[in-house]
Amino acid sequence: MSYNTRIVLASRPQGRVKPENFRIEEQPIPVPGNGELLLKILFLSLDPYMRGRMDDAKSYAAPVAIDGVMEGGTVAEVVTSNHPDYTAGDIVLSHSGWQSYAISNGIGLRKLDPKAAPLSTAVGILGMPGFTAYTGLLTIGQPKPGETVVVAAASGPVGATVGQIARIKGARAVGIAGGPDKCAFIKNELGFDAAIDHRAPDFADQLKDACPNGIDVYFENVGGAVWDAVFPLLNPFARVPVCGLIAQYNGLDFSGKDRLATTMRAILTKSLTIRGFIQREFIDQRPAFAEAMSGWLRSGEVKYREDIVDGLANAPEAFMGLLEGRNFGKLVIKVA
Amino acid sequence: MSYNTRIVLASRPQGRVKPENFRIEEQPIPVPGNGELLLKILFLSLDPYMRGRMDDAKSYAAPVAIDGVMEGGTVAEVVTSNHPDYTAGDIVLSHSGWQSYAISNGIGLRKLDPKAAPLSTAVGILGMPGFTAYTGLLTIGQPKPGETVVVAAASGPVGATVGQIARIKGARAVGIAGGPDKCAFIKNELGFDAAIDHRAPDFADQLKDACPNGIDVYFENVGGAVWDAVFPLLNPFARVPVCGLIAQYNGLDFSGKDRLATTMRAILTKSLTIRGFIQREFIDQRPAFAEAMSGWLRSGEVKYREDIVDGLANAPEAFMGLLEGRNFGKLVIKVA
Repeated sequence: MSYNTRIVLASRPQGRVKPENFRIEEQPIPVPGNGELLLKILFLSLDPYMRGRMDDAKSYAAPVAIDGVMEGGTVAEVVTSNHPDYTAGDIVLSHSGWQSYAISNGIGLRKLDPKAAPLSTAVGILGMPGFTAYTGLLTIGQPKPGETVVVAAASGPVGATVGQIARIKGARAVGIAGGPDKCAFIKNELGFDAAIDHRAPDFADQLKDACPNGIDVYFENVGGAVWDAVFPLLNPFARVPVCGLIAQYNGLDFSGKDRLATTMRAILTKSLTIRGFIQREFIDQRPAFAEAMSGWLRSGEVKYREDIVDGLANAPEAFMGLLEGRNFGKLVIKVA
Repeated sequence: MSYNTRIVLASRPQGRVKPENFRIEEQPIPVPGNGELLLKILFLSLDPYMRGRMDDAKSYAAPVAIDGVMEGGTVAEVVTSNHPDYTAGDIVLSHSGWQSYAISNGIGLRKLDPKAAPLSTAVGILGMPGFTAYTGLLTIGQPKPGETVVVAAASGPVGATVGQIARIKGARAVGIAGGPDKCAFIKNELGFDAAIDHRAPDFADQLKDACPNGIDVYFENVGGAVWDAVFPLLNPFARVPVCGLIAQYNGLDFSGKDRLATTMRAILTKSLTIRGFIQREFIDQRPAFAEAMSGWLRSGEVKYREDIVDGLANAPEAFMGLLEGRNFGKLVIKVA
């Protein structure tokens, strides 16, 4: 109770993430200095991008240091404030990482209204994953009425939102997910036009059948075998926003012949657009997103599902499950 | 003189194009019907995209049929007109292919003013290659002042124009070409900031040295080994318009490990845009291009070089040379 529990990166994974890559530590609760706040973490968001931060490969963000606290978006309560803009009891969105307490100087914090929406949604449908879906689909994917939008990890927080916004924009939404429960959920609960189980032996054929007019937008958030099935179905002028490659994060690489030349040839002959992005590039769309998404949630046009795991100590196991598709909905750790 | 000479596709190439893939034929000059024109071809444009038409692989355009006339853009004189909009003596831009005479119903023709510019430029700097450079660089590449633009085949009609427009827009232009003569030409005559010989053993290192701030726009028109050298130098948010892959057209494919996963990872972590295109997608920019390019030619801000080969019978050999980089400037066959 009087300790700060934190989970640090003990070692960099070689391929698959293992429990020994993490270490749990107890430290004294830090004391805020002048102009600083002490935050008590309520919810920690677990997201696929964190796998990238465990490597020291060059990326858009610096890696987590060995023995450093694992990074992550959080919802927190202000315990003590030496900062003029905050008082004890305020609820804020912060990026405090995998720990139970944190110091902040106020930079990058955003106050949350606990009455407006459940607090966990600030790291889910109303937060980074929801905004990733919104901006990637609308800015890069640009689905037109009647077009076919395909998204993988379709029961996850990004994929589920992509499909629902595609339908709001008049497009056909085809979701790919792992197993019958997730497929039933995206089709029956979220209203996707079709749901394909990527574990089915005839997955590629099923996808082809579900896309009789080809694919106009493929929202890429998994990579790997799903890409192989999607690629031949891409229509001329198809758009491929790339926001994640979870199937490749563990280094489970492709083998066999080099497909780069074939891919480049298709990019040329089909006039394809392949565009990597991270949501913060489009941060100026954040207010429009907040307004649109709040409206869609009120009207019921967009639904979301959360997978809330109790206790910070369970974060490593939950995260490893996320990388293998064992979660079902937006994975959030209830820290306090 | 009283025959139509035509060059047809005798067989589809297996890998490298060979003389036996072509057959030269003499036929009676065709007679135009009602509403039709007889055209006498003056100039035939030879362009890398024609290699793609020799295969029956799926592409944005149908392949040339076996025994069919090879496709190509042409400048022609109207010999006989049964069409109200044309009279004998008119000079037109047409797509009449590798032959000395052709029938047209008028669709797709554009009248040319022989006094405005040398006629061959209608298939060069003021035609498809010039427009490809203009629209690909400005619409997709979007170079900003101070950015670095790299283009390969930089002494060719597309590459040379890309580099010169990049400089007009305030960017740094780095050209890649084959051999010291072409490199001297793009640096000394066209004003590129740097010229790199892709045949140099330390080509990749030279390219890196010439791009100390990385690459913001890579105008891809060759593929193959040049792409391998460019790829690691791409900056975050780099744009890659893809208009050709001449190094791959002959099926000289990469071998070794599959680089698709690595490429996709870079697209993600660097927020890259890779965008295939053909110029006719942006046809509404054609008038703006014609005005801008005419101005740049008058002011001397854009220069061009043509490689004019006399005689239709020499087209196959000239085309095979084009695919191997033996031409120097826009390759045009003087047919009549």
